[in-house]
This record gives sequence, C-alpha cells and structure tokens, in this order.
Amino acid sequence: MALKTLGPKAAAALDQELMSTCAFSIDQLMELAGLSVSQAVYRVQPLHQGRRVLVACGPGNNGGDGLVAARHLFFYGYKPSVFYPKRSKNELYQRLAKQLEDLEVPFVDDFPSALKSTDHIVDAIFGFSFSGEVREPFPQVIKSLEETDLPVTSVDAPSSWDIDNGPPNSGLGSTFMPATLVSLTAPKPLVKHFTGRHFVGGRFVPPYIAKKYDFEMPEYQGMDQVVEVPPSGQKL
Amino acid sequence: MALKTLGPKAAAALDQELMSTCAFSIDQLMELAGLSVSQAVYRVQPLHQGRRVLVACGPGNNGGDGLVAARHLFFYGYKPSVFYPKRSKNELYQRLAKQLEDLEVPFVDDFPSALKSTDHIVDAIFGFSFSGEVREPFPQVIKSLEETDLPVTSVDAPSSWDIDNGPPNSGLGSTFMPATLVSLTAPKPLVKHFTGRHFVGGRFVPPYIAKKYDFEMPEYQGMDQVVEVPPSGQKL
Repeated sequence: MALKTLGPKAAAALDQELMSTCAFSIDQLMELAGLSVSQAVYRVQPLHQGRRVLVACGPGNNGGDGLVAARHLFFYGYKPSVFYPKRSKNELYQRLAKQLEDLEVPFVDDFPSALKSTDHIVDAIFGFSFSGEVREPFPQVIKSLEETDLPVTSVDAPSSWDIDNGPPNSGLGSTFMPATLVSLTAPKPLVKHFTGRHFVGGRFVPPYIAKKYDFEMPEYQGMDQVVEVPPSGQKL
Repeated sequence: MALKTLGPKAAAALDQELMSTCAFSIDQLMELAGLSVSQAVYRVQPLHQGRRVLVACGPGNNGGDGLVAARHLFFYGYKPSVFYPKRSKNELYQRLAKQLEDLEVPFVDDFPSALKSTDHIVDAIFGFSFSGEVREPFPQVIKSLEETDLPVTSVDAPSSWDIDNGPPNSGLGSTFMPATLVSLTAPKPLVKHFTGRHFVGGRFVPPYIAKKYDFEMPEYQGMDQVVEVPPSGQKL
C-alpha cells in the first residue's frame, strides 16, 4: 500500500490550519520540525562516524527548520556549521541565527569549499512551497549536492525536486538523490521517486487534522519525534 | 560536591536574558521545558505501570510547562487529564490549552476526585517565582499532594516549597515530598531538601550563559532533553 501524501496546496493549507484553528505558533512548529530533523540525523549519522554537519539553509521556513536542527545537533555533540547565504529579515529567523551565533557555530560563505571539511550535509534549502526555479546563489549549491559523495539529509523535499513530480531533468547528467529524507507532518508526492532512508516527523498533529487531510499518522516509538518508514511507498 | 543552584532572583534574571540577549521566544522555551518534563515522566512512569497522568497546572509559566508536557505525554501513549482551575488570559496559555482540547484531553474540575483515577501526577502549579502564599483554590490541592500515595513529578519546584529554604512548616503534620523533581535550566536552592529522583532539563542554554550564572550544564546523553542527577547534592 502506497504511503498517503500531501501535495503542495494541501501542505500549505495544513500549515495555515495548524497556525490558526489549531493554535500553534510558528515558533513552536519550527522548534518541533527542527527537533525532528536533528533526531533523524542522529540516527543516520552516528557521532562516531563523524561529527561535522554542514547545514545548508534556504531563505524560508525550510531554512528555519535547518537552523533549529543545527542548534539541537550542537547539543548532541556534533560540530555543525551553517551555510545561510540569503538571510531572511524575518525576526524569527534572525533569532534562530542568533541562537547559533551564541554557540559559536560557524556560518560559512563558500559551499563547495565547506563540503571538503564536513561528514554530513543537511539540505534545508527548499521545502514544499518550492516551484520550479532555483535562484542564485543556489544553482551551484544544488550542483554540489548532485556531485558530492557525502551523505545528505533533506528536509521535507530534496531541494530542486518538484513537489509533485520529483527530480527535475537537470541536464547535468546526474540526479540529486539524498541518502535521507525527513518528511515533515506528512510525505509529499515526490517520495515515490525517492529511494533512500525515509523518516516522518510530526508527532503533534491532532488526529482529526490527519483525518481531514487524509494522511496517516505513522507509529512513533518511545519518545521519538521521528519514525523511519518504508521508502517509495514500499514496505521495508 | 554540592550541585550549584540558582536562587529565585538569579533564575528570573536568567529567564529574562534568555528571552532578550539570547533571542529565545517564550513559545520556544516553554515547548522545550514541557518536552523535558514529558521525558522525565516517561522515565519514571513507564507506560506499562499505568498510563493515566493528571497534570495540575498553575496560572503562570509553570502551568504552561505542564500544558506542553501533557500534549507530549498524549503522543507517547499516556492518557493525560488536566486540572487547570485558574486559566490565564495570556494568549500563549490559551493556545496551549486549545492544543490539548483538540486532542480531547479532559480538563477536570475536582482535584481530589481526579486523584482517584490516575496513576501519576504532574505538579506544574508553582515554579521559581513562587513566594510564600498559596492562594485559593490551591491550598486544598497542596493538601491532597501531601496526603496522596501516588507518585508526583514536580516541575522546577515542589509546589508550596520556598525556593531558597525548601518545605514550609505546613502545620498539617506532613510534608509534600514528590517522588520526582525536574529542575528547569538549573536546580534551585530547595533541592538540598529534596530526597527523590532528580532530573535537570535545559539542553539549549548557551555555555557562556551557564558560566555567567555560575551553574554547570549536566552531561546529557544521546538526544535526551533531560538527565538524571544525584539527589540532594550527593553523588548517586
């Protein structure tokens, strides 16, 4: 049985509903999203296999989730660094960045160079609201992600993928296929093209909302904020 | 070596600094505090020993932490109920209560009756800003907490205790001694009178802040948001 997914319009409507009817603040949702991402990274990149994690953050909510994840990773014992070339003027993102600066987490400017001294990459560039055009300075970043042999964990969507249709025809002869995907709240339709390890995070969604948007809450274990699910709609 | 503690004035100043210089929002801090409390309860009250948790919430921040903890406990598989007699008009607390109502978590009015059908109690009535006077309707609640044989987990302070000096002379012939205490950010001086299991939660405080306020960050394990520490300043 294929995993039920949420298209970009439904995902946007759900986010709006969480922040209105359901009374969550964006601070809360972003804290929980970033926490989920950090827990998935902890699972796929054990500390003894390398502590250096480069978190690539886009200008929107996906980037904010990355900033929160970087903070939690710091406290787990990782050595995060952050690539955040298009800083939002949004007050929330500025605060999340300040929280990292207070931990002396380095912000790096040159993504290809930074790749040479990391063990893992978190791709928090574009999320479910991405549609079609990769703007500067991100084309080079996406190209680096396509070419790297390092493990990448993507937040909600592999950046540059179409939310409905999956990998774009990049014309570069390679496809960006992250090792890990963390779907936030519910998987997006692109997961049918994804062949890596797949986690879902969203252990706060009221059951009536899952029912209304017609997706299943996965069975989380213990106190975990993420759960690994079968890739590509196939049972593990 | 005795655990370093934070008196009520220092704790208030630290909270202010976290929300100003350190750029945390109260939504974030409360989410993290409630998450810590939920993780401590998960440790001391395994699901198979009884899932019913009665969360007693006071009118301030301590109560807000309790509301967040109740939500996480619900998702872990507990059956929380909430006693919240003095609802704050503060918008944040109203939202946290709504998040519980959406999960159909029952709000109960009669604390002594509710005690008859629970397995565990979370005391989120008063925190570090409490000083001296237990106002209505809480005297009866404190009396029930003194008399119950059920395990109680107190948030930051056993309610009615003086933050510096510990248990009050209640004149009732008994002292309220919860089974578990979760100190938020850093223990308060009252811990020297506390003989139960002691957890600390605050895995987000920048090291320079811990240094400035002269307390130690305990060594958290894995992805845990709480760590158990020796009670009463004695090594375990």
